[in-house]
Amino acid sequence: QTPSRLTDGVAQRAALRRHYETVRRETTARTEGLTVEDQGAQAMPDASPTKWHLAHTTWFFEVVVLEPVGGVPPLRPGWHRLFNSYYEALGPRHPRPERGLLTRPSLAEVLVWRQEVDRALMQLIDAASDAEWPRLQQLVQIGLAHEAQHQELILTDALALFRRHPDEPALRVSRPLHEASGAAAPLAWHTIAAGTYCIGHQTDAPAFDNEGPPHAQLVGNFAMADRPVNGRDMLSFVAEGGYQDPQWWSSDGWALVQSEGWQAPLSWAEHAGQWTVFGLHGRVPLDPDAPVCHLSFHEALAVAAWAGARLPTEGEWETWARHLGPLDWSARPLPHGLGQVWEWTRSSYEPYPRYRPWPGSLAEYNGKFMVGQQVLRGASVATPAWETRPSYRNFFPPHARWQFTGVRLARDL
Amino acid sequence: QTPSRLTDGVAQRAALRRHYETVRRETTARTEGLTVEDQGAQAMPDASPTKWHLAHTTWFFEVVVLEPVGGVPPLRPGWHRLFNSYYEALGPRHPRPERGLLTRPSLAEVLVWRQEVDRALMQLIDAASDAEWPRLQQLVQIGLAHEAQHQELILTDALALFRRHPDEPALRVSRPLHEASGAAAPLAWHTIAAGTYCIGHQTDAPAFDNEGPPHAQLVGNFAMADRPVNGRDMLSFVAEGGYQDPQWWSSDGWALVQSEGWQAPLSWAEHAGQWTVFGLHGRVPLDPDAPVCHLSFHEALAVAAWAGARLPTEGEWETWARHLGPLDWSARPLPHGLGQVWEWTRSSYEPYPRYRPWPGSLAEYNGKFMVGQQVLRGASVATPAWETRPSYRNFFPPHARWQFTGVRLARDL
Amino acid sequence: QTPSRLTDGVAQRAALRRHYETVRRETTARTEGLTVEDQGAQAMPDASPTKWHLAHTTWFFEVVVLEPVGGVPPLRPGWHRLFNSYYEALGPRHPRPERGLLTRPSLAEVLVWRQEVDRALMQLIDAASDAEWPRLQQLVQIGLAHEAQHQELILTDALALFRRHPDEPALRVSRPLHEASGAAAPLAWHTIAAGTYCIGHQTDAPAFDNEGPPHAQLVGNFAMADRPVNGRDMLSFVAEGGYQDPQWWSSDGWALVQSEGWQAPLSWAEHAGQWTVFGLHGRVPLDPDAPVCHLSFHEALAVAAWAGARLPTEGEWETWARHLGPLDWSARPLPHGLGQVWEWTRSSYEPYPRYRPWPGSLAEYNGKFMVGQQVLRGASVATPAWETRPSYRNFFPPHARWQFTGVRLARDL
Amino acid sequence: QTPSRLTDGVAQRAALRRHYETVRRETTARTEGLTVEDQGAQAMPDASPTKWHLAHTTWFFEVVVLEPVGGVPPLRPGWHRLFNSYYEALGPRHPRPERGLLTRPSLAEVLVWRQEVDRALMQLIDAASDAEWPRLQQLVQIGLAHEAQHQELILTDALALFRRHPDEPALRVSRPLHEASGAAAPLAWHTIAAGTYCIGHQTDAPAFDNEGPPHAQLVGNFAMADRPVNGRDMLSFVAEGGYQDPQWWSSDGWALVQSEGWQAPLSWAEHAGQWTVFGLHGRVPLDPDAPVCHLSFHEALAVAAWAGARLPTEGEWETWARHLGPLDWSARPLPHGLGQVWEWTRSSYEPYPRYRPWPGSLAEYNGKFMVGQQVLRGASVATPAWETRPSYRNFFPPHARWQFTGVRLARDL
Ligand SMILES: [Fe+3]
Ligand SMILES: [Fe+3]
Ligand SMILES: [Fe+3]
Ligand SMILES: [Fe+3]
Repeated sequence: QTPSRLTDGVAQRAALRRHYETVRRETTARTEGLTVEDQGAQAMPDASPTKWHLAHTTWFFEVVVLEPVGGVPPLRPGWHRLFNSYYEALGPRHPRPERGLLTRPSLAEVLVWRQEVDRALMQLIDAASDAEWPRLQQLVQIGLAHEAQHQELILTDALALFRRHPDEPALRVSRPLHEASGAAAPLAWHTIAAGTYCIGHQTDAPAFDNEGPPHAQLVGNFAMADRPVNGRDMLSFVAEGGYQDPQWWSSDGWALVQSEGWQAPLSWAEHAGQWTVFGLHGRVPLDPDAPVCHLSFHEALAVAAWAGARLPTEGEWETWARHLGPLDWSARPLPHGLGQVWEWTRSSYEPYPRYRPWPGSLAEYNGKFMVGQQVLRGASVATPAWETRPSYRNFFPPHARWQFTGVRLARDL
Repeated sequence: QTPSRLTDGVAQRAALRRHYETVRRETTARTEGLTVEDQGAQAMPDASPTKWHLAHTTWFFEVVVLEPVGGVPPLRPGWHRLFNSYYEALGPRHPRPERGLLTRPSLAEVLVWRQEVDRALMQLIDAASDAEWPRLQQLVQIGLAHEAQHQELILTDALALFRRHPDEPALRVSRPLHEASGAAAPLAWHTIAAGTYCIGHQTDAPAFDNEGPPHAQLVGNFAMADRPVNGRDMLSFVAEGGYQDPQWWSSDGWALVQSEGWQAPLSWAEHAGQWTVFGLHGRVPLDPDAPVCHLSFHEALAVAAWAGARLPTEGEWETWARHLGPLDWSARPLPHGLGQVWEWTRSSYEPYPRYRPWPGSLAEYNGKFMVGQQVLRGASVATPAWETRPSYRNFFPPHARWQFTGVRLARDL
Repeated sequence: QTPSRLTDGVAQRAALRRHYETVRRETTARTEGLTVEDQGAQAMPDASPTKWHLAHTTWFFEVVVLEPVGGVPPLRPGWHRLFNSYYEALGPRHPRPERGLLTRPSLAEVLVWRQEVDRALMQLIDAASDAEWPRLQQLVQIGLAHEAQHQELILTDALALFRRHPDEPALRVSRPLHEASGAAAPLAWHTIAAGTYCIGHQTDAPAFDNEGPPHAQLVGNFAMADRPVNGRDMLSFVAEGGYQDPQWWSSDGWALVQSEGWQAPLSWAEHAGQWTVFGLHGRVPLDPDAPVCHLSFHEALAVAAWAGARLPTEGEWETWARHLGPLDWSARPLPHGLGQVWEWTRSSYEPYPRYRPWPGSLAEYNGKFMVGQQVLRGASVATPAWETRPSYRNFFPPHARWQFTGVRLARDL
Repeated sequence: QTPSRLTDGVAQRAALRRHYETVRRETTARTEGLTVEDQGAQAMPDASPTKWHLAHTTWFFEVVVLEPVGGVPPLRPGWHRLFNSYYEALGPRHPRPERGLLTRPSLAEVLVWRQEVDRALMQLIDAASDAEWPRLQQLVQIGLAHEAQHQELILTDALALFRRHPDEPALRVSRPLHEASGAAAPLAWHTIAAGTYCIGHQTDAPAFDNEGPPHAQLVGNFAMADRPVNGRDMLSFVAEGGYQDPQWWSSDGWALVQSEGWQAPLSWAEHAGQWTVFGLHGRVPLDPDAPVCHLSFHEALAVAAWAGARLPTEGEWETWARHLGPLDWSARPLPHGLGQVWEWTRSSYEPYPRYRPWPGSLAEYNGKFMVGQQVLRGASVATPAWETRPSYRNFFPPHARWQFTGVRLARDL
């Protein structure tokens, strides 16, 4: 029998080509509204300039796909040191906190490089032998999943830059980013019965190494909130002195509250009794029904404790998400406030049982970060729909506030 | 029927009195070899002066037992602010990094205070009504478990002080601390079959809140080394360039290797091809058969990766320890190198399912530290035998090196 | 009689207009070779982005001249906070270390602002009443002297940026900056006889407040080198272990040598026995005859001690310079290596006897910096010829290396 | 003729012996009221423990006198590294900020060492040949002058320690330290006529190298206040918002006001409208007539500017002091509030014309600190009377507050 069109090599190549073009175009589309100067500045050591993201994702295809699979000599070998992020095995690296000093190459030169790499990759997809194809396909998919992560960072890092500008410019993202939330119903709870549930990536579809292997996990009777903590909840926490009361906070969190002077979530401001929030559309009135964004893990812990609830483990979160059934992530907003903010879990970022990193230099992709970070689940307004799945494990250090991060409560039953 | 002697109130009180006296005496016994000046200095912000430990453990009985249970007015109310460690609910605190500046009260005054508190506690044990007894008993036991933790810190913190002295004085601990190891057999492995095992504290004996509730846990087929990583292993790691090769290290660990210039475990030094180690008995030749001590979690991870193994989770560790059957911790050295060094696990310090902190101010005892730390299991040479059990959860941040910390390898089967 | 053309109001106004236009054009000419991105980045907290210099000098005319003299409302009031450097009396200021984050306004917008301010200033020069004229003239001259200082900083700060780029781009300044030095004659000494000499600004020509009042100063018999310390001298200092020997260094200087790892002057590098230097024209072979540049005061002190000489006081320097007679600074290179590098003196930056700061907000221009800095005399390749005079007092902290700074030796006779 | 008894060798030796004994005894007398623990702690990196001062001054005699002159082998060679302060030429040094960690040797051991060194020195004074005598005499005098400096530091550093203790213990100095001031007359001014005056050490009496050579200096007509700025003056400065108004402050000073939160002089506190000051006798009511103490140079500059006056240069100060005629420093309190607080001058600490450091390792005594510091003149309550003279140059960095430092105003006439 003939294989189905989808598994047919020609169709697979065409599909990958289309996917590649779409994703790469989306990356540059996300720079809309950013000037050449905006794209060069680095808001803080944790964030990177837009131009750096554009170059780094291109470097990634050059060193992970073009050269190893296609034998294509690097198009810009002299730039590798500038745009290698953290791969010790791939040579020396420019110090991360000094990415904003890389005024050369220019944005224009980086964009030309992107096009040249895109052309070379298109040719490689066409020219690869059938023997090479599976590896090529997998590595391009990894490259695109990587690109998706940086698409989100382009927005969070630009926002971090504008947040530090006295004028708080608006990114003026014209395409709606699903932020609309509608009037919130009262909080309800989904209950899950205790049992042994399988979590982790379980299909042949692309996924990150850290999502596997799939494995069973014991879960008790618990309930998950049917929406993230929203502005109204957080206003109550603020109003009831939550940021002044150590009983809700971890020791590290309380130390940050005091040393950083936290009084409300990042970007919140109060003037004459009215609260505003700075986000992708500039400073706007606080929407009490929208999920709270830019929470650190410490704030998530504190507001959960204050609410008499707790954070879910990542196993609980994924079990709950699988109970919801398949979701069409391209049709956001989704039910239950999903896909608006990454949701902090109580789980530290650790390897799953029998976890094996990808081979070679890609071993550094995820494995070496599995200490000192917390897992987040779900997706944010800035996460591409196609790169969203219940097994996806995002992670950030517990103090991080500049990502699109919020929290959904859980309870023991 | 009459109750057994052990459950009889009179006997219980006598037993607690004896236990209290023994433990408190052991605390001051541990200051042997330390001068008045040694006992006042603070090696670093993470460590505390001996005198501070002596006073803090006394303060603990004053505020946790004497006043709440016995209604005894504080004997030294003016010192509470100096010796409260981290209890927000118990009033203001002197900054931790400045404990070495507390030259007043003197060591002599602190020792007098200890005796007065001891006397008051003895009286309270005698005088407490039967109704008060259970609570008194529990709180005294908590106070003694707390004292046991500081007994260990007295040694690690004094060692940290002497490590920074150019002359590296020897603590000259006269009582052997079970460091003798004997010639090491080749590494063998204990295998544990996959299954659902219960971990956590399961009896009525005293334990910390963080050891419960007991709960089932899924474990795969795995093997545990029958001894910790020893000096010979670590020498190979050093000799094969382990401290120069990023492939073995987490990202944070590698950053520390470079910024701190780590080239070998803490306190190791090499001169003319001979390695020495600084420890409780001063600088002595490296014993290749003794468990490596003073490893950070990052070094534990690195040496495990280099050895082709991994760290156990805390669930695996406890499951393995329970398979060993009951151990007489008072008869150290124990088999399998147990009780010589705390053993880092791959598990972050998180609450067990349905964990509830102790009520009141003791809620701060453990719960607020459950972020950014790794669990260690077992016990070290400095841990009192009576305060050792398979469910015990020690924890430190991943960069900590000044504790008696080592590592036991595990493998998937 | 009619006044001479030069003192005639009309001619004075024309002259000022011409001067203004020339200076302001020179400022933008100095951005030659810098991309939009280069002009936005901030090399380090001490340095500023080119764009910031372009805007700040424009802000200066707006707040110091246009508004106070001409009553012209600010053209960009919203930008004042961004481009006020350090004038407490002129309102709040964006934090200095964050100037590189000011991606808005764009370079293009700043250049438009410059033109609008230029037009307004031209109109004011024409329109000012005779009564207003003297004050207007003085303030414009101060604004231009200020602009001259920032012209120099545009080059030093861009160089500081490129120094931190792994590729060390060349500014490629096409116009020669008088760096040519010619073969150096052996060092000779100018002798000055002991006496009472007047130093300080003594004419009606424009000058900074810190150059006056002129006053007598006692000077002993001394000698001044007829050229600055050159590359050959410094190579000997390096070769003879000058950077490894504390005897030549001040206590603070030696601490910096160790903490910063100084082994040679900034921007020097050695490869296979050949020394190169990074400067305005990129990395070029070390010219042994050219004055050493980018020395800190500490290095100047050390090399002088090693040479058996000392630094001149600023009184000695000025006395010597006045003995040289009038110099045509527009015809560089000048004799005696003058005008190539600022020359550190042994004098701390202190007020002259009976010094009075300028009135109003300009009081902050110089007076508040008279602590913790050392005086430099002369001029560098980057100093405009018209803003050079024997009484000019430049100043920087003793650790500063990124300016065009060198040293000329003196000796007691 | 026979020489007078005072210049006779035997008498000279007896006098030096008496002086030595008196000074050394005074040093330990200054530890009165300090416990063993007090004497071991280090208040901050700039300060040293009492025990360290006791040991360091002893080390000084060992390496500067006993060994070079008497050929006496070091009595405690193993301690040299611990108690060498900053002499690069005299071998490695324990890091200054870690002096509080030197719990070994004990205070008792240090005191024994002091006695042994004292005995050896007595013997050397007796045994030295006539040829050796002049050098021995000079070096012992330097050692005693050095001891005098540390006598003052023993008090300021102990005070710095107690200032950081929550209980603010009182040193309880029983011997009056001349703090009594009496009711202050209104401020009057001493006028000095312009002229050429000689400053610097001009006799054969012992003095520091930095006090010479004596040299002429031009001084304008000026006036000096007949008393230091007192508590009443400073209260007005505080009350009129002096600590909130940048116009009075240098740029560095204002930065400190903000970063350190300065609102009043160090150790001042206000409660219910009453001001108190923490000093040698504990916390006592502010004496409005007593000279203000613990001012930084920045505060001295600010209060002078606010008062419409200025600081004297060190040349002016010494000229004025010489006009006062000889003073009996042993009969304090002195007229004009002299000898109560060191008086900041406007002069940076620079070498006098033709200054030559002492030879050998003593070259490091003063010369290498002549950058970044301000000169203070006079003496404080803690300065021994015999080590007080008009040419004495004390120096500290402009931010230092923990010394007994105040200010006397000057004015141009
Ligand atoms: Fe990346
Ligand atoms: Fe404790
Ligand atoms: Fe300026
Ligand atoms: Fe000294």
